[in-house]
This record gives sequence, structure tokens and C-alpha cells, in this order.
Amino acid sequence: MDMAKVNSMDFGEFVDVFGNVIERCPLIAAAVWSQRPFSDLEELEKHFFAFIDALPQSGQEGILRCHPDLAGREQQQGTLTAESQREQSSAGLTSLGAEDRQRLAELNAQYRARFGFPFVLAARLSDRAAVLRELARRLRCPPAHELRTALGEVKKIGHLRLADLLLSDPARL
Amino acid sequence: MDMAKVNSMDFGEFVDVFGNVIERCPLIAAAVWSQRPFSDLEELEKHFFAFIDALPQSGQEGILRCHPDLAGREQQQGTLTAESQREQSSAGLTSLGAEDRQRLAELNAQYRARFGFPFVLAARLSDRAAVLRELARRLRCPPAHELRTALGEVKKIGHLRLADLLLSDPARL
Repeated sequence: MDMAKVNSMDFGEFVDVFGNVIERCPLIAAAVWSQRPFSDLEELEKHFFAFIDALPQSGQEGILRCHPDLAGREQQQGTLTAESQREQSSAGLTSLGAEDRQRLAELNAQYRARFGFPFVLAARLSDRAAVLRELARRLRCPPAHELRTALGEVKKIGHLRLADLLLSDPARL
Repeated sequence: MDMAKVNSMDFGEFVDVFGNVIERCPLIAAAVWSQRPFSDLEELEKHFFAFIDALPQSGQEGILRCHPDLAGREQQQGTLTAESQREQSSAGLTSLGAEDRQRLAELNAQYRARFGFPFVLAARLSDRAAVLRELARRLRCPPAHELRTALGEVKKIGHLRLADLLLSDPARL
């Protein structure tokens, strides 16, 4: 990790590197740049999460709606972001059998209809069996509770993406 | 305009159609979907603008930072959004002479260094001479005043993009 490098970035570089920490929401990275300098990963992450927490409910739902379905249309069309592709692949969601794919598509549709946003889960911390189980379970949760759960998953995903950028692959900085 | 069609869209369709009303900020369209149904263009637009106005200053700066420079790197690399490409072209910014291009690059760099966001202007309402003049003028404005001016330009751009989608080209809906 080289926070001096992060802190020296102009906003264009910063958004290029951190723009997808929150899936398809470069606006959030672009806003976080206003809070530089950052002392460490933890502080940088804190600003991403504080921005999410301060949004009105519609904005928090908006963040969720920028996420793709797991094993959904975008995966089949090859239009996932690089990060999502890697995460869904690591959970085995890019190589589902026809039956699992169909079951997931049905549950995803029920979930979207019930909550008005897609089912979001940190796929790298899961696998195909757990994804189906968790989706079936969360489908039955009260909407206000489920919004909090889903935003928690957004933060887990963001934490892993930030850690990738800052810890595992310093060459990318 | 067919607001019945707009109001019948699921959030995926809505973000596909309106996701770039605010440049590279699909989060905002995704949030606005929470406010449906909409009675007309004016009401739909009101929700986009209210979302912008309710953001903290860092978020408003973040919106500006998602915009490309006029006649800048993204235009030269061909990575502008379709909407930006069209707008910059209509102002003659895609066919600048070497001298104008150089002058604009210098002023853009000064502007970014002074304000921490790129120079944003509704290019369709302007032309190459006016862009250079306005950039030189706005470079001298106080930062708080300039933030308000720039967000006003974001709204002009958004208004024109919404009008395109809802009025001129109903086939796209």
C-alpha cells in the first residue's frame, strides 16, 4: 500500500482507479476525492461508507440498482464490469448448470419485484449453493431490514475491492 | 412523450434509458426511479435536480468530476459517452484547430487546478468561440460561486438530454 501515491492523484486518476469500488457509481469515488489526504485504507474506506450512509433512501436504493443480477442478463451478454465478472466467477456463478441458472433467475425476479432492487451479495465470500440458500432466505425479510442487509453487502464488496487495489496489487497504483 | 411508458419501466429499463441524463451518474437515475410515477417531463426533471441539490458539497463536486474535459483526453481517445460526443460536436469542439485546442487544454488545466473539478458547460447552447470566452471568464470566479454555476450547467445538459429522450425521439422509448 502506498497512500502517498493515492494522495498525490488528481481526481481523474483517482476515479480511474477507485471509480468501481462501489459498482457503477464513480460519482462516489469522485466525491470521496474531496476528503483527501487519507491516512490509510481504513480511512479511505470510511469515507466511501459515510457517503453511502448519508444518502437518502432513494439514493441507497439507487446504488443497489446499479448492481447486476447474479448470473443474470449482463453476465450472459458479457457486459459485467471486470470486478463483477471476477467475483461472480469465483463463486462459481459463471458456470451454473441449466437448473441452477433457472432457479436463480426465478428467485432474482421475485426479489426485484418484492424490493425494487436486485439481490446483492459479496459473491467472493460465497459459493453457488450458499447464494441460492441466502437469496431464498432474504426474499422473506422485511423490506427495511433487507435494505440494510443489502447495503452491508455493498460495503463488503467495496472493502474487498479497495483491499485488492491497495494491498495485493500495488503495481496497479 | 409517453409518460405511461416511462412509468411502466422496471428499474433496469429506466436506468438503461435515463442513466446518462446526468453524465456518468446512473446512480441518480436509479434513485429517481423510487419517485415514480411521474406526471410529465417537468416533474421527472424536478426529481433529478432535487437529488443533485440534496447532495453534500463533495457529492456535487463528484458529479462534476464525472464529466469529461471539453475537447480533452476522452474526446481524443474516443471514449466520450454518446451524448457528450454529440454535444461537443455540435459546438464545433471536435474539429478545433491546433491553436484553439492548445488554448482550451491550457485553460482546462488551470480550471481543474483552481476548482478541483472540470469545466462543465452545456456545449449545445454554445460554440467554440463562446466556450473559450466563458472558460476564461469563469476561471476568475470565486469557488463557491463557480460550483453553483457549474451545477446550473449540469442541469441545462440534463434538461436537454431528457427533452431528447421524451420529446424528439419517442422511438427510443
